[in-house]
Amino acid sequence: MRTSEEVAILEQWARIVGPEHVVTEERELRAAEKATYATGHRIPAIVRPADCAQVQECMRAAYRGGIAVYPISTGKNWGYGSRVPASDGCVLLDLGRMNRIVGFSEELAYVTVEPGVTQQQLHHFLRERRSALWMDATGASPDCSLIGNAVERGFGHTPYGDHFANSCGLQVVLADGDVIDTGFSRFPSAHAGPLFRWGVGPSLDGLFSQSNLGIVTRMTIWLMPAPEYFQGYYFRAESSEGLSGLIDALRPLRLNGTIRSASHIANDYKVLSALQQYPWHAAGGRTPLSRPLMERFRKELKIGVWNGSGALYGTKAQVREARRLLRRALAGKTSRLQFVDDRKLRFASMFAKAYQLGSGWNLARMLAVLRPVYGLMKGIPTEHPLASTYWRKTAPPPPRMDPDRDGCGLLWCSPVAPNDGFHAQQLTGLATELLLRHGFEPMISVTVLTERTLSCIISISYDRDVPGEDQRATACHEELLGELGRKGYYPYRASIGSMSAAMGPAGPYTQLLRKIKDALDPAGILAPGRYECREPDRVKSATPPS
Amino acid sequence: MRTSEEVAILEQWARIVGPEHVVTEERELRAAEKATYATGHRIPAIVRPADCAQVQECMRAAYRGGIAVYPISTGKNWGYGSRVPASDGCVLLDLGRMNRIVGFSEELAYVTVEPGVTQQQLHHFLRERRSALWMDATGASPDCSLIGNAVERGFGHTPYGDHFANSCGLQVVLADGDVIDTGFSRFPSAHAGPLFRWGVGPSLDGLFSQSNLGIVTRMTIWLMPAPEYFQGYYFRAESSEGLSGLIDALRPLRLNGTIRSASHIANDYKVLSALQQYPWHAAGGRTPLSRPLMERFRKELKIGVWNGSGALYGTKAQVREARRLLRRALAGKTSRLQFVDDRKLRFASMFAKAYQLGSGWNLARMLAVLRPVYGLMKGIPTEHPLASTYWRKTAPPPPRMDPDRDGCGLLWCSPVAPNDGFHAQQLTGLATELLLRHGFEPMISVTVLTERTLSCIISISYDRDVPGEDQRATACHEELLGELGRKGYYPYRASIGSMSAAMGPAGPYTQLLRKIKDALDPAGILAPGRYECREPDRVKSATPPS
Repeated sequence: MRTSEEVAILEQWARIVGPEHVVTEERELRAAEKATYATGHRIPAIVRPADCAQVQECMRAAYRGGIAVYPISTGKNWGYGSRVPASDGCVLLDLGRMNRIVGFSEELAYVTVEPGVTQQQLHHFLRERRSALWMDATGASPDCSLIGNAVERGFGHTPYGDHFANSCGLQVVLADGDVIDTGFSRFPSAHAGPLFRWGVGPSLDGLFSQSNLGIVTRMTIWLMPAPEYFQGYYFRAESSEGLSGLIDALRPLRLNGTIRSASHIANDYKVLSALQQYPWHAAGGRTPLSRPLMERFRKELKIGVWNGSGALYGTKAQVREARRLLRRALAGKTSRLQFVDDRKLRFASMFAKAYQLGSGWNLARMLAVLRPVYGLMKGIPTEHPLASTYWRKTAPPPPRMDPDRDGCGLLWCSPVAPNDGFHAQQLTGLATELLLRHGFEPMISVTVLTERTLSCIISISYDRDVPGEDQRATACHEELLGELGRKGYYPYRASIGSMSAAMGPAGPYTQLLRKIKDALDPAGILAPGRYECREPDRVKSATPPS
Repeated sequence: MRTSEEVAILEQWARIVGPEHVVTEERELRAAEKATYATGHRIPAIVRPADCAQVQECMRAAYRGGIAVYPISTGKNWGYGSRVPASDGCVLLDLGRMNRIVGFSEELAYVTVEPGVTQQQLHHFLRERRSALWMDATGASPDCSLIGNAVERGFGHTPYGDHFANSCGLQVVLADGDVIDTGFSRFPSAHAGPLFRWGVGPSLDGLFSQSNLGIVTRMTIWLMPAPEYFQGYYFRAESSEGLSGLIDALRPLRLNGTIRSASHIANDYKVLSALQQYPWHAAGGRTPLSRPLMERFRKELKIGVWNGSGALYGTKAQVREARRLLRRALAGKTSRLQFVDDRKLRFASMFAKAYQLGSGWNLARMLAVLRPVYGLMKGIPTEHPLASTYWRKTAPPPPRMDPDRDGCGLLWCSPVAPNDGFHAQQLTGLATELLLRHGFEPMISVTVLTERTLSCIISISYDRDVPGEDQRATACHEELLGELGRKGYYPYRASIGSMSAAMGPAGPYTQLLRKIKDALDPAGILAPGRYECREPDRVKSATPPS
């Protein structure tokens, strides 16, 4: 049963966006409430505006009516909560229909998009124009929103991998329906609007990332010129302790700009999950996959305990020099360092068997994993990593994968650590032990995210259809987050359900956030709970000036 | 005469910082009110806290008493207003005593500093430790504050030239005396505090740059590893139209990462002002320096209409390849492309005369200008550019230069444009014509600031002791700012006196800023007027939710 206020606002929204774009059908609502782990928040309706003006009108109505609204771009925030709002009872504001590419410059290398524009869409757009620009892509689905990922501060694989750092000129609808443009975009016909982050005066972009202070309805994303030459590199360590040496060897090259993109280093569990589903037969139906069994697979598949990839971008001579420096840095740290370019990859695909004999590498099987990663390093979206969300399922992934619908269990924890071997070792060691103890495979990748930091992505992957697993996964995630925090490692991004925990205890910082939120959205109708500290933080109120 | 409230607060501050650090002496106050152009704001007192706790206590007292306070780091914001507050009657909160370097890591390449730490101090610190890290320096005095420049979003000459983009972990005292740390620094013993910009949740760093929302009392600044090899490059164009081709040739190299630092391209007037004072004799005592006379000097000194410099950083092979690409790109665009490294510079200094014969370049005289620029590109602070603020003076600069004290006239205007030859040409053409028309030499430098933008620094340089010049300079500056805005070019930074104009007209954006300001500082006691729109922007108040 809906209250009369709810009925009234649904009617208002229907007038704004058209009745066919106000969803109240039970099946659709229940589907939207389902993520890749246990969440309890209910969604009373979904509203799908067509443009910024409609978003403004919808928000004005919500603001007047005191109705809580939760915006999503395409809602494919898998592992962190999918489409599920951070609080119970929020109406979903689905921006998926706003999928126009509204600006583009080949010379100045940018594109301006709306929240519904997906990775695949931009990729096609550039291909169609025979553009000499590359986008950055994440390993998430090609159907993921570019803006959604950027405002969550997600990252990819090219030199433009830090998505939020490579964007500017945000158009933002505030809780009360006002709309602003950030940076120079707020000035009439400013030439540098899509080009320069800061503008003049306080810079507000950061306020609208990982936040509930506004709805980003447009954003400029910078693109990179396709390099004259591209080469991927792959390396590995044969022991879990080998990670430390790899990280320490790569750090100077990342700091001095020889390596300009993130290297990703995945452990054996992670690689196995990219190659196949859980080996139920070999494991005798038991979980988690034990260390000894993992070791057997590792030897069979000729993968390392740690398996790294990265890429070099530049002229032939620039890449050649980077290759020399990389070889020198990794000497003695890795059992194998391979370089792959387009030609070699084509060749390898044709002669996988012969290549394997020559190189000792099980290329035939590995190509299925290599190719999507290779593509990602060139900014080509792929569906491949999505299949690994079906890891613990007993049936194979369907042709149209949908982890939310299919009961795939996935819960991510993504702590940040110094770009330093000791920390990489300590962090991954802790996570490995903790996940195995909770009955999950420790699937871990370590990304050399910036010059000075690593981000470690720890996946808790399970089957939601197995009774009790949801609770066990949530408990494991909570303990992991707590334990990492006690050791000084905090996540770069939070999942629905852990947002308050991730934001830390109440204090002057959360009070400041609260003051800003109260100033913009006094009734808290915009995405309540999203990146908010839930502890009472209004206790200490500042003395007003006399 | 002071009011009883003023007397009371001065007593409170004296108890907090010690009476010797509360300055009420007329001579000192009047000196602090003097900038390099006409400003009218009076300073009733100067308070000099020793640490963050004292800043907090001072602010608590000011907040309670409703006393306006204006923080400065070292106050050497020459050309933009020096130490002068953005409003009349603000007490100066001078943070110069807070000059400790409180954190440093050679491996992870950062330093954590207080606002009083100067360029020179950090340079010494690194030298003393025989650190293999380089800082970035601006052409402002070695005595300038690092934090002061970074929060103003100033820029320098190395790959770490965008100062605010290369900093994180801000400690900020708010108007009410609360203190917060940004990013991960707010969490207990977070390892990534000085390493990672974003933290988790909304990112607030940008809020405290070019703002009056808080006082930055600590900041981490990232440093770059000294490259194995360094080479400066110099190039020029012989006509004013030649700028366009240079910019368009450099853009692809900046975009693809071959050039990792800002190139600076100065016009003939700017170079002349770096070489000498105004040629009063040759100009027959008249100003401005006419185009034909400038041309005569240009030929005599063998400088171009546009004179560019930049640097290449890397291994020998990396620099060699960058050099090849730069040569190829600039072929036909520049009449002369020179590469200089440490060895060549030493050699040139010893055999300047012989070198000139060989190269046709007036190296002996140019070395005086070249050397400081060369040093800046290696992050070595220099006093040299400061001398050019004495350009229109008839007496030579004194040994201890102080442009504020000495009546040097300097007013900067710094519009941002797309990294595109057409815009560079249009912008500089407009500024050249306008300044000459107002009776000032158009001293202009164009910096390829980021991959996609140029920043143009236009100096209005004059002698404040010549009656009427202050007014003429201000009028020229105002017209320039207005004219540039009408053409779509907006400044990256504003000067005291033009802040409200630079912030643009009232609208939803300025209303948003106002709401945030009101939430944090309801009485507006912290740096009132600083990067604030002065138009009434509270007219339209949002409807509160029912």
